[in-house]
Amino acid sequence: MTAEFNDMAGFRALLERQPDTDSGARDAAAERNGQLTKPPGALGRLEDLAIWYAGWRGTATPSVTAPQVIVFAGNHGVAARGVSAFPPEVTAQMVANFEHGGAAINQLAAAAGAKLDVHALSLEDPTDDFTTGPAMSEAALCTALRTGWEAVDETADVLIVGEMGIGNTTPAAALAAALLGGEADEWTGRGTGVDDAGLAGKTRVVAEGLRLHAGRGDGVETLRRLGGRELAAMAGAIARARSLRIPVILDGFICCSAALTLEKTCSGALDHCVAGHLSAEGAHGKVLAALGKEPLLSLGLRLGEASGGALAIPVLKAAVACLSGMATFAEAGVSDG
Amino acid sequence: MTAEFNDMAGFRALLERQPDTDSGARDAAAERNGQLTKPPGALGRLEDLAIWYAGWRGTATPSVTAPQVIVFAGNHGVAARGVSAFPPEVTAQMVANFEHGGAAINQLAAAAGAKLDVHALSLEDPTDDFTTGPAMSEAALCTALRTGWEAVDETADVLIVGEMGIGNTTPAAALAAALLGGEADEWTGRGTGVDDAGLAGKTRVVAEGLRLHAGRGDGVETLRRLGGRELAAMAGAIARARSLRIPVILDGFICCSAALTLEKTCSGALDHCVAGHLSAEGAHGKVLAALGKEPLLSLGLRLGEASGGALAIPVLKAAVACLSGMATFAEAGVSDG
Repeated sequence: MTAEFNDMAGFRALLERQPDTDSGARDAAAERNGQLTKPPGALGRLEDLAIWYAGWRGTATPSVTAPQVIVFAGNHGVAARGVSAFPPEVTAQMVANFEHGGAAINQLAAAAGAKLDVHALSLEDPTDDFTTGPAMSEAALCTALRTGWEAVDETADVLIVGEMGIGNTTPAAALAAALLGGEADEWTGRGTGVDDAGLAGKTRVVAEGLRLHAGRGDGVETLRRLGGRELAAMAGAIARARSLRIPVILDGFICCSAALTLEKTCSGALDHCVAGHLSAEGAHGKVLAALGKEPLLSLGLRLGEASGGALAIPVLKAAVACLSGMATFAEAGVSDG
Repeated sequence: MTAEFNDMAGFRALLERQPDTDSGARDAAAERNGQLTKPPGALGRLEDLAIWYAGWRGTATPSVTAPQVIVFAGNHGVAARGVSAFPPEVTAQMVANFEHGGAAINQLAAAAGAKLDVHALSLEDPTDDFTTGPAMSEAALCTALRTGWEAVDETADVLIVGEMGIGNTTPAAALAAALLGGEADEWTGRGTGVDDAGLAGKTRVVAEGLRLHAGRGDGVETLRRLGGRELAAMAGAIARARSLRIPVILDGFICCSAALTLEKTCSGALDHCVAGHLSAEGAHGKVLAALGKEPLLSLGLRLGEASGGALAIPVLKAAVACLSGMATFAEAGVSDG
């Protein structure tokens, strides 16, 4: 699948002409849900989740049989500023670990019955340090967006995108701060586990980035200035999923900061997304609140790699199985109270 | 498997001589967890969950391949007092629905790869109305405990117990109030959905039961006086799982009130149990707090049928898959910071 855009203007235009949910299928699913053999509302959030999914898939009795998890990897100029507890070479080492099946996401994707794809984006060529200029040129941004766009399997029925990139909670914090407002220290956390001095230095880096780039453009332009290749690829994949009516389960702070750039470019661009989990990275909850998304899970994960999103796949599968597979009161001969 | 007890005294004695976790396996799992290719603690609660499971299974690299879900059904004398939004015949209708695969738990168990067993306990013979005397004789209680005990598959590697019984949030509320203190209205909720007048009447029934039975004995005696057959069967199954070192995922309010009777008979009797979810039935959170259990999920379910426990099976599977299947830093050649 060749991407249908060549530049940032083309990508923005594409976001404006995306398909919407099928309200007929959604309403039919809601009506079916009301007839199933359970007290009204007794499946809680599973009910809304399944109805939402039915709308995007265009059928009142959908199924989830082909989840796709994609992990994008990138390196960051700001990593040289000492913003991470791990050295930059770990990005490539972890890509090898994904390819050999040794990482958490290998286990989580397999446990959820999901296909896992890994895309490393020019790891030998980190983005530019955003404290001295934009992280990416327009061409570099669009290449990364297209990598994401083209990575989505057209036959998938739910997509989870995640990332690996040493230092990438720093661009995530900068993006969230630039697009949602507030000071650097409100958005900067410990990531993989920096100490107090590391956190202070990381916060200064984010603040420097904000002075240079905040308020200089929309979501996509801010993604170019403060983001990274794997963040842009996640945004591209999320947009492609919408064009294919494939619902998306969002992962943690970095994924949601990348997704936020779409929402800030085109309001409603994330209507086909749910929040998989609430990360232990403190600012994630603030981004979710800004997006109006309530996380399905809250288990203290802060790993990235699509891990929290993948962990929510079975919740979606369960919800959809109940909607599509349960008997109605009439079918089962059960008195409905 | 024939139960190893013939009366309440025998059941109490059995609870006192149950096996404990294997601290060697647990410690070995914790050490392995610290070497896996992720930042320390980055899998959040999945890490503690997997280590806990490893201890009970007696190996540092366990697997979860044989979950068993058991739904016990019973009828209640207090149902005649109008405590439910559904008529009592729905208990038997729902048992038929389980057997034909039409209920939520059929879908949730299948989605989680779990075997589902259903045991109906003397549905034609409701327990006695606890507002006029004990719900069960000692013989009836022990028959129900034994039904639960014998229902557990010795080859299962995790057990989820649940229930169906029109009116059974009423005995659950009475048990919790009797064993944890407080007034009837603090423990009585809407169950499947009674209206304000129904809630007031249900609260009066619980209060009447408390006046007659609270403070008259330990957990098992209180279970006899205020419980029901399906609650006793859940307690028996949870105890049997402990004897087999099969970890248990607890379901919602009724399951946890039944489990509470074990804890109040023998402190530590639920060390092999985790809380699968937080139910929308308000008093569930108070029972979990008293048990010192933090729920894995909080999705607003209030269905019973083991539904919330079954929904947590994939979380346990994922946690254990990470512990047992991930590569260590040394194996993967990843720098550990």
